[in-house]
Amino acid sequence: MNERQRARRPGGRSARVGAQVHRAVTDLISERGYGNFTVGEVAARAGVADSSVYRRWGSLETLLTDVALTRLNAQSPMPDTGSLAGDLRTYAAQVAREITGPDGLLLVRLAVALSSTGQQGLQARDALRDERTRQLRSMLDRAVERGEPAPDALDVLDHILAPMYIRVLFGMGPLTPDYVDGLVDRLL
Amino acid sequence: MNERQRARRPGGRSARVGAQVHRAVTDLISERGYGNFTVGEVAARAGVADSSVYRRWGSLETLLTDVALTRLNAQSPMPDTGSLAGDLRTYAAQVAREITGPDGLLLVRLAVALSSTGQQGLQARDALRDERTRQLRSMLDRAVERGEPAPDALDVLDHILAPMYIRVLFGMGPLTPDYVDGLVDRLL
Repeated sequence: MNERQRARRPGGRSARVGAQVHRAVTDLISERGYGNFTVGEVAARAGVADSSVYRRWGSLETLLTDVALTRLNAQSPMPDTGSLAGDLRTYAAQVAREITGPDGLLLVRLAVALSSTGQQGLQARDALRDERTRQLRSMLDRAVERGEPAPDALDVLDHILAPMYIRVLFGMGPLTPDYVDGLVDRLL
Repeated sequence: MNERQRARRPGGRSARVGAQVHRAVTDLISERGYGNFTVGEVAARAGVADSSVYRRWGSLETLLTDVALTRLNAQSPMPDTGSLAGDLRTYAAQVAREITGPDGLLLVRLAVALSSTGQQGLQARDALRDERTRQLRSMLDRAVERGEPAPDALDVLDHILAPMYIRVLFGMGPLTPDYVDGLVDRLL
């Protein structure tokens, strides 16, 4: 299905199948964890044919990253507040809220799972990372266009996102607003 | 067995059982990944009774963290070079080498696995983190005793260790010496 057809049928069969499959993946992740279910089980749970899943996503790894990205984009859209400090503070606070939630380590768990599933898993992990980095970079580019000096996307990853992820992973929360703002201020 | 008895029989049965069980755990982790084997399977592989494992370690979670700590302490002992900059650079370079190796994400994988196994898993994860933090803190304390200004252990975690871990997890290596030294210099 090409983009034009998809756009003409926003509530059509394709959108319905997409939602059912995403829901099946989310359920199976929370019931069994990553790495413990197959495309066949996703399809059965979603009530669609295996071939529908393969045709649309190609592999379980691509499907998993599609589900993760959809969720991340809904929960943590890149903010556009008009200033770099505002954007980074808002974004950091969003990420902090998201990763301290009940299913907060989604991205870390997914990256760990994809790293263990060979070449296809690594490619899916890289695609996920590149898409989120691209979004972050466009936020930083807007600052540069306004004439603000901006850090590199990798600096944001290293000194704002990485510390929050590792603290949550090792149970060193909570991520207080002071702590999160402090990471942003230190980078800026 | 108390410490005195253990010390009197360094190559005795207890040490042998310990080595066999550690080896069995390491093999099962590399074959199946964390979370996919039981104490019974470890004991069978090691050729010891289940009860020997439970008596000594109490739970699978405690055993997993004991194996991880033993390995970390062997591969990344805290350096003592005589200066804080030297210690931090040496330590950061060791961690970089270790986590870019074939089984480098050991700690992240273990933390993810322990986070999913209820209260006992969380306690084991916290104990692991506290022991490594304690070692790091003693290195920083030596700097303070020498009269050098030293960062907090959490700053070392946030701005030296976390970026390296997240970069490896998301396939953003290699961790070049320039990059690793840059993280240390930036913090100091």
